[in-house]
Amino acid sequence: MYIFLSRAWVAATCCVFGAAGIRADEGMWLFNAPPLDRLQQDHAAALTAEWLLHLQQSSVRFNSGGSGAFVSADGLVITNHHVGADSLHKLGDETHNYARDGFAAATRADELKCHDLELNVLVSIADVTARVEAAVTTGMTANQAFPARRAAMAAIEQESLAATGLRSDVVTLYQGGAYHLYRSKKYTDVRLVFAPEQQLAFFGGDADNFEFPRYNLDICFFRAYEEGRPARVPHHLAWAAESVTEGELVFVSGHPGHTDRGNTVAELLSMRDRSVPFQLATLNRLEATYGAYAARGPEERRQAMGNLFGVQNGRKARQGVLAGLLDPRILAAKRQAEHGRRKGLEDRLAGRTSPYACIEQAQETLDGIALRHRMLEVGLAFNSMFFAHARTILRAVEERAKPSGDRLREYRDSNRESLELRLFSDEPLYDDFETTKLADSLTWLASTLGGDDELVKNVLAGKSPLDRAAELIAGTGLGARPARAAGSVPSDSRRALYEGGVAALAASRDTMLAVARLVDQEARSLRRIAEEAEEVKRQAHAEIMTNRFATEGTAMYPDATFSLRLAYGLVKGYGEDGPRRIAPITTYAGLFARATAKRETPPFDLPPRWRTLRDQLQADASFMATPLNFVSTADIIGGNSGSPVVNRDGRLVGVIFDGNIESLVLDVAYDDRRARAISVDATGILAALRTVYRADDLVNEVLATADGRR
Amino acid sequence: MYIFLSRAWVAATCCVFGAAGIRADEGMWLFNAPPLDRLQQDHAAALTAEWLLHLQQSSVRFNSGGSGAFVSADGLVITNHHVGADSLHKLGDETHNYARDGFAAATRADELKCHDLELNVLVSIADVTARVEAAVTTGMTANQAFPARRAAMAAIEQESLAATGLRSDVVTLYQGGAYHLYRSKKYTDVRLVFAPEQQLAFFGGDADNFEFPRYNLDICFFRAYEEGRPARVPHHLAWAAESVTEGELVFVSGHPGHTDRGNTVAELLSMRDRSVPFQLATLNRLEATYGAYAARGPEERRQAMGNLFGVQNGRKARQGVLAGLLDPRILAAKRQAEHGRRKGLEDRLAGRTSPYACIEQAQETLDGIALRHRMLEVGLAFNSMFFAHARTILRAVEERAKPSGDRLREYRDSNRESLELRLFSDEPLYDDFETTKLADSLTWLASTLGGDDELVKNVLAGKSPLDRAAELIAGTGLGARPARAAGSVPSDSRRALYEGGVAALAASRDTMLAVARLVDQEARSLRRIAEEAEEVKRQAHAEIMTNRFATEGTAMYPDATFSLRLAYGLVKGYGEDGPRRIAPITTYAGLFARATAKRETPPFDLPPRWRTLRDQLQADASFMATPLNFVSTADIIGGNSGSPVVNRDGRLVGVIFDGNIESLVLDVAYDDRRARAISVDATGILAALRTVYRADDLVNEVLATADGRR
Repeated sequence: MYIFLSRAWVAATCCVFGAAGIRADEGMWLFNAPPLDRLQQDHAAALTAEWLLHLQQSSVRFNSGGSGAFVSADGLVITNHHVGADSLHKLGDETHNYARDGFAAATRADELKCHDLELNVLVSIADVTARVEAAVTTGMTANQAFPARRAAMAAIEQESLAATGLRSDVVTLYQGGAYHLYRSKKYTDVRLVFAPEQQLAFFGGDADNFEFPRYNLDICFFRAYEEGRPARVPHHLAWAAESVTEGELVFVSGHPGHTDRGNTVAELLSMRDRSVPFQLATLNRLEATYGAYAARGPEERRQAMGNLFGVQNGRKARQGVLAGLLDPRILAAKRQAEHGRRKGLEDRLAGRTSPYACIEQAQETLDGIALRHRMLEVGLAFNSMFFAHARTILRAVEERAKPSGDRLREYRDSNRESLELRLFSDEPLYDDFETTKLADSLTWLASTLGGDDELVKNVLAGKSPLDRAAELIAGTGLGARPARAAGSVPSDSRRALYEGGVAALAASRDTMLAVARLVDQEARSLRRIAEEAEEVKRQAHAEIMTNRFATEGTAMYPDATFSLRLAYGLVKGYGEDGPRRIAPITTYAGLFARATAKRETPPFDLPPRWRTLRDQLQADASFMATPLNFVSTADIIGGNSGSPVVNRDGRLVGVIFDGNIESLVLDVAYDDRRARAISVDATGILAALRTVYRADDLVNEVLATADGRR
Repeated sequence: MYIFLSRAWVAATCCVFGAAGIRADEGMWLFNAPPLDRLQQDHAAALTAEWLLHLQQSSVRFNSGGSGAFVSADGLVITNHHVGADSLHKLGDETHNYARDGFAAATRADELKCHDLELNVLVSIADVTARVEAAVTTGMTANQAFPARRAAMAAIEQESLAATGLRSDVVTLYQGGAYHLYRSKKYTDVRLVFAPEQQLAFFGGDADNFEFPRYNLDICFFRAYEEGRPARVPHHLAWAAESVTEGELVFVSGHPGHTDRGNTVAELLSMRDRSVPFQLATLNRLEATYGAYAARGPEERRQAMGNLFGVQNGRKARQGVLAGLLDPRILAAKRQAEHGRRKGLEDRLAGRTSPYACIEQAQETLDGIALRHRMLEVGLAFNSMFFAHARTILRAVEERAKPSGDRLREYRDSNRESLELRLFSDEPLYDDFETTKLADSLTWLASTLGGDDELVKNVLAGKSPLDRAAELIAGTGLGARPARAAGSVPSDSRRALYEGGVAALAASRDTMLAVARLVDQEARSLRRIAEEAEEVKRQAHAEIMTNRFATEGTAMYPDATFSLRLAYGLVKGYGEDGPRRIAPITTYAGLFARATAKRETPPFDLPPRWRTLRDQLQADASFMATPLNFVSTADIIGGNSGSPVVNRDGRLVGVIFDGNIESLVLDVAYDDRRARAISVDATGILAALRTVYRADDLVNEVLATADGRR
């Protein structure tokens, strides 16, 4: 699943990549710097500004970590089931399991409002590099430069928000080579319209995840609302009348989350030997913990399912990245490319320290504090939403007293609304599950930092991790517990503390707030060290980048940053060089064949609805021949999940939901030999909605503009 | 599940424990030093030598990691399903899944011969401490003392084997305080007689594992053969006519694998902060790897199931140990006890280095090499049976040239037969699964030692771990692959190399042999360092122990060593101090109630046979009231799985299969407040065999001596 886990432990460094080695259909291009020449030259495709703007403003970012697109004038959004899953889980309760069983709103009045889902639509991009760079003056140390830069970015964002009312984010591109202001329209009233059963959305489960051929109806529909009514959106994508064909050019508009292609070799080695193995150890541990909890019974499975799928997906994705980093050919190519560039740059330094050396040093600093930083500041030691809320409240109150530009970045004024949406979410939290997660992570804290570490002893307060976790969960009032739970508390206790400020915090006896306070001094100090090292790297990367623009030209794209990008490629099979060729398009006939081949054992079983209709569907030759999934060479990565795939006419032909296992290496280097993006086919979606789900209203709505551009 | 993973990464250190703090029913007592006075005093139980000998010689050790007992004169053995599981898995193939579906031999001719199962029955114990200690003379350094001691032990074993024909093992007790020669009768023709479905043997799965109340029919039956005929055994246990009652005294005779109660504080801290967290990281990783492989389909699940259950069980067990070590009360008690002893001993040292300090230093040495040692010598980096066989062949040929006493201990003459049984096992190996395991472990090697480590580079030979794993598996002929597999090789290729010796090895182009050779120099050198450090600890522990025998008396038991021990306790509920009291005995009625409460969702589903009979069984009040599982305060640990539980009359009342979660801490300290051993009830077993499985022959066989001692 190509979801983007925007967790800080998925390394937060991203850098630059140069045009020098750009291959075929490589690139996650900026919408304000699209590869028009390459498209014209390689594919005879002439994109117009209007075409681009329409695609841009039809594209939707799911702030929970994915992409999507408007597909009707009434704010209907299509995305992946697994992108919607976070909301589906939160909407469920002991008697409703929407994530597993699916959902279909009979009328618009039946659409279910999500707890804390925010959608963004990119309205405009402006280059603000000069203003950001002007804030950092010669002679500033890193611990002066970082806050100065942060303040400049916050000021730009706040001015933009005040002037336009739009969400405004300054995005760091080329790891400091450029700063662009992204203005987005924000939707926070988002409702669930339709989702199929997870068995079909995620047919083949973890086993088939990142594999191809594939047979997943990995979609669901939401609707954006404004002022209580369906949003009338100015742009939405029309559904293509025809399926894609082999060799066809397609475009992907979405939000790739993070890539590391521009990392220096020193950074890549740190990833290979340190951060990625650590991430994998984390994910393995969480998979065991969530899996054991889910095995306790059906209700526990429902509670843990979202987390469990997330870590399984992350584990497979990071395994792919590690495999790439451990492939000597990839690293050799990286070393070779860097060697040439580095020599050219260092020859002209005239005695100044090489930016490559600066990066090496800064990376050493980061590696040195990594364990404590991840435990305390990233919060791996406190794996509970109660803790996350406690820290947000504690810091929000403290940061509020400072000017916006001086605050920790997530507390800047222009981000307030998004932060509050999450903090005041009435997502239900389950004490047993939160206790299990917290006990596990406190155990991990103690066994990584050592049981005799002073902070560990203070956090555990003389108790075993399990006893302490139970005590902390019992003593916190920061939950929106399910109403029936013992000890339930008003769900607005978070709001009261948040709004009550310093006095309310001082009066509170909340256990989780106390723990957040206990670790905050060291956590903040670790963050400061990390931010300074990142600033050193940013300046060094900026110098490397300036040099590269000068020597290699500017027709480049920056590493992924969860901002909107344009990719493109051909619908194309692969494996000609291996034991068998893999055709690019699968059908519903293939779905039934695979289920049968696997004896319909989970995760290869069909949902009841599909079993009931099996004879009818199998007798329907047209349905069976309908495409279900297809692959293309488009350059994507986690975060692109749910991205619309359009044809030359800009019409929807598919929805990205995954990459194959060979594509996971795209994190560090593009490859079009075997790496492929995987989409749900748009005609396949319509066929299922019509024939299986009888979702006629939905079909009519998306087809309303199928015969023409709006 | 109370199985003993005799893998080296489950720390191989075990030490001493003193009588000073022995509580109530504490103790894993030696059969040649039973706690007769305590039993007489506390429970008015007068055990005779005859009673003890009968129980000893009815007890069976499963060398795969568990316990069992003879229950008929014709060599019928009862143990746990999960102890037999290793053999059940190996006997299965694509069309037979005995581990999952169970097995019942219609006649003796239908009993299935296991691939490599060895059973041992303890015949006699002799104290050989004086002879072993005489080999180590004053002034020897550790690197002289270790081989001298090893040679003395090997000589004793070889003489005993030659004189008696019995398997002969010198067991190190009290971590060097004593050495006893254990002579055992060995059975290597062992056949599967009966196993229930795993769903019932392991009802509740990983979720209920180590929990109570419990409802597991965790049993199976094997039969020992001699010269192709059922073995006529001199001792076997009669089945008790009545179930246990609350408060009844019961005895457990089995093979607890390993405990750490006598560890010094320095050793415990190393466990807490280093080895146990490392083991957990290993188990988490393997759980993810095996789980992902199992999810690929039913056949893959069958192949991986045994490994998967093993690591899930190990993970839960090690979590329990870690929880104990992280409980400040336990460590405080350990520190306090050590403080007193240490002071007394050190006051009399007259300038010599304290043995406690020696242990601290040796532990530091061990910690320093632990990572490379585990990777290369323990072999975590090469998780494939192909590698294990390659190393055995390589080392067996090299060691053969030396006198038996000078060899690596597992290659001593007296162990040859057991080693060959495993090496020549025709257990099928599956290339896909072996490749998955090897790729995962090579990745782990690279990411823990670093991709630029010279040895890592040599092992990977310029390829990515996945490519290299595939190449190694494709290029080895050491497998007994299933006949239908492509590239299958004669299953006796291992024998040819093993017997062909140096010349055959030199001529071989086998890839896995080449890798084993590549790492062997460093692996052996790490082992040498570890063995010397262990020798230092052994001498230090011996001094501590001598001092303790002198000051605290000799009525002690040593830490568990997978040798036969006697434990005892009362059938007793618990939880009076908590939210609810837990009654000590469950019934079949409870089984059906729990299945219903969990909506019969796996792992709480009943096997088809039980579902079919449900109405009949539920109408049978006598069946429903039959005990299924019970708990007692007996002192057990992993390895006790399958241990017979007998009453005062020495008759079988149950079979140990687990401890509750509170008992996992018994690794470091006994507790009878909430820690409990869990058994399958003997009457419950008979009821199922009669009513559900209609296994009349089996019932008649075990009841043949039910009314009298043989």
